[in-house]
Amino acid sequence: MKQINLGLIGFGTVGSKAVELIQLNKHAISQKIGAEPVFKYCCDINTKKLSQYKSLLGKQCILTSSWEKVVADPSVNIVIELIGGKELAYKIITESIKQKKHIVTANKALLSEYWDTLFTLARVHKSLIYFEAAVGAGIPIIEALNEGLAGNKISQIAGILNGTTNYILTQMFERSIDFDIALKNARKSGFAETDPSLDINGFDTAHKLSILSSIAFSNWIKPDSFYIEGIQNIRLIDIKYAHEQFGYKIKLLGIAKQVNNKVLLEVRPYLIAGQHQFSSVNNEFNAILVDGNACGEIMFYGKGAGGYPAASAVVSDIIFLARQIANKIAGNVPYVAYDQTRKIELIHSFNTEGKFYLRFIAEDKPGVLSKIADILAKHKVSIAGVYQKENISAKRRGGVPLILITHNVLEKAVRKSIEQIALLPVIKSKTVLIKIK
Amino acid sequence: MKQINLGLIGFGTVGSKAVELIQLNKHAISQKIGAEPVFKYCCDINTKKLSQYKSLLGKQCILTSSWEKVVADPSVNIVIELIGGKELAYKIITESIKQKKHIVTANKALLSEYWDTLFTLARVHKSLIYFEAAVGAGIPIIEALNEGLAGNKISQIAGILNGTTNYILTQMFERSIDFDIALKNARKSGFAETDPSLDINGFDTAHKLSILSSIAFSNWIKPDSFYIEGIQNIRLIDIKYAHEQFGYKIKLLGIAKQVNNKVLLEVRPYLIAGQHQFSSVNNEFNAILVDGNACGEIMFYGKGAGGYPAASAVVSDIIFLARQIANKIAGNVPYVAYDQTRKIELIHSFNTEGKFYLRFIAEDKPGVLSKIADILAKHKVSIAGVYQKENISAKRRGGVPLILITHNVLEKAVRKSIEQIALLPVIKSKTVLIKIK
Repeated sequence: MKQINLGLIGFGTVGSKAVELIQLNKHAISQKIGAEPVFKYCCDINTKKLSQYKSLLGKQCILTSSWEKVVADPSVNIVIELIGGKELAYKIITESIKQKKHIVTANKALLSEYWDTLFTLARVHKSLIYFEAAVGAGIPIIEALNEGLAGNKISQIAGILNGTTNYILTQMFERSIDFDIALKNARKSGFAETDPSLDINGFDTAHKLSILSSIAFSNWIKPDSFYIEGIQNIRLIDIKYAHEQFGYKIKLLGIAKQVNNKVLLEVRPYLIAGQHQFSSVNNEFNAILVDGNACGEIMFYGKGAGGYPAASAVVSDIIFLARQIANKIAGNVPYVAYDQTRKIELIHSFNTEGKFYLRFIAEDKPGVLSKIADILAKHKVSIAGVYQKENISAKRRGGVPLILITHNVLEKAVRKSIEQIALLPVIKSKTVLIKIK
Repeated sequence: MKQINLGLIGFGTVGSKAVELIQLNKHAISQKIGAEPVFKYCCDINTKKLSQYKSLLGKQCILTSSWEKVVADPSVNIVIELIGGKELAYKIITESIKQKKHIVTANKALLSEYWDTLFTLARVHKSLIYFEAAVGAGIPIIEALNEGLAGNKISQIAGILNGTTNYILTQMFERSIDFDIALKNARKSGFAETDPSLDINGFDTAHKLSILSSIAFSNWIKPDSFYIEGIQNIRLIDIKYAHEQFGYKIKLLGIAKQVNNKVLLEVRPYLIAGQHQFSSVNNEFNAILVDGNACGEIMFYGKGAGGYPAASAVVSDIIFLARQIANKIAGNVPYVAYDQTRKIELIHSFNTEGKFYLRFIAEDKPGVLSKIADILAKHKVSIAGVYQKENISAKRRGGVPLILITHNVLEKAVRKSIEQIALLPVIKSKTVLIKIK
């Protein structure tokens, strides 16, 4: 049987699970490929850890801390980059492509930032880059958008794309705990990394949204070209009021949608109605809704984080690539095809309409509501619902919460109103603004 | 620009929508393919209808009622079979393969029955058969199982796979109407065909389950090799009691799962708990849960019926095939790879355990429950819940309903009990047995 040589660079959780999966299902996988996948190299800075896995990796496997060695070996067919980060990963991938190797990666930050460079280089060298694990871990959403839904004009993608933040928001809701405690718990349970800032501030979701929309709209949509807001300002009080008074849950969404021939992209917390499918997507689970002009709304749901789910995607990529390599057709057709000349016009969130949840902390005295309502009316922000409750503990902190739900209004107008309302002496803290789906 | 010639055979709802989609998105689709897809032939017995669509099809398109003409033309690259049925479709597809053409089809009955013959023939002639539209219409589940989840050992597939029956069951539940009326409504709304028997009796679901499990378990699993039960015996009374008393909904499911190194397959109505994802899948929507050893549970959800959703899948298949043809690599790697020598042992539903809902209609007199309970106990069927209500209208018809929910028990034992209970003179009509998920 022919042999496909793999060079794994980065032996962390995902890398080790990918090796485990391939060794476990070696027979079935070899049959699917029509060749035997063999780990020729396993590379990690921690070579001590590597040597503990020697029996799993197989005795033919060369353990090394030098990625250059892996990339330089002409017998390596596929380089699997799982180190994360940008600079070094970029070097490894571009060097590998130049050495005519094919790539499997889960690196969403890198892909979203160097989409154009990487896929152009890959096309030139007839190399393939597969990256199913970059979005939604085990959910095969990249392939679906790229191939299974290719006949559609996509009008919207909306997704809960980050397991860490969804875990934190779920825990805040279910256990009535505030953000900081939920974050601590997430770290303890292994659902948040030591430095979870990329997750918390929405950048990880933005990288993933960039990748999904670049495929869906056949163009590179950069992650720095749209509005990104994380969950660091979500407070328990908002989770509670939104749910108890209006039946909403709060989820961090990445959204890309066509609005009058332009594309609106945004990453931000959203209020989700109880009957919406996203409302029951909890903890580390992800869900992605794709709306196409022929297929209608299609939802994909599954674990969006974790070693095994991500390894599922990595191994599927390896199988698919290896099949093509074994049959000498890999690289004849690029995996991602897009039109560099076509320009897509983006529209900023603030210039579009939406419904909003506004939470003020105001002094508990007569006339407050009328002053706020006045300013909103001046900016043509019309109110759909109000909630104000005597709240002793909040009073002690110097104000009571006042919640307004708007009708469909221009976000810019809402934000201007809030700026002006902030100048009122009755307003006691920063106003919270959350968009409603 | 290169040209890929399409021969469409069967210009019904799906066929015409597929043409519409391709013509509508011609520029974007040509770019994805790297060649222009052109309808060289459109074949239907109703040539009058065809001529009405002449402008949509383009003037180069030859309208004909002779499929032989389409298949005989060596310039045709892809034959799109959308006539349905078995004999003629089989002839068209096998002849096309022999003429080195590639195939797109939505024909689940044909595929599930001739899986082995068709894919063997395709391999011999280096022809590709794509069939995304055969299951779940626009939901890209075939590709997901075949490629995106290929790294997993699949332990379970469970799905609401038939839009017609799901529409009928939803309408029965929501409008409190009985089966016959719901079926009539479904016909009126276009969700049931004139002869809906393949849907109603579960065979359509069985064909789809056969296809999904043949891919998932890399083997041909014939649709006549497992238990199939339709929804024709589902009564409003059961939908109501199951929901009001126990919180269940009734859905027709196709299930394939690993049970001790064997595979259990079945198509049957199931009681679904309110919190299960399937419980909110209504009307013509489909949902498919796939459980893999690495990816965990992944759900796919979307419209499982209708011209546009099915056309979405057909066009995606055409794009993907055409890309490979344009790059001269189509057929080098078979789309479906499986192991004909490996034997999969099936286990029959009746020989496995499950929880069950039993509804008796019995005389309303003392001792009935004890007699029934006695027989169940003899067969080691233990009871988890009982519901009996005085019901005047039922009384008039000669009995009152008595509902039992069992613990986990061997289905064979439940069925034997029911046979014996049927002999009791207090039993007034056929006992209803529904499995609980």
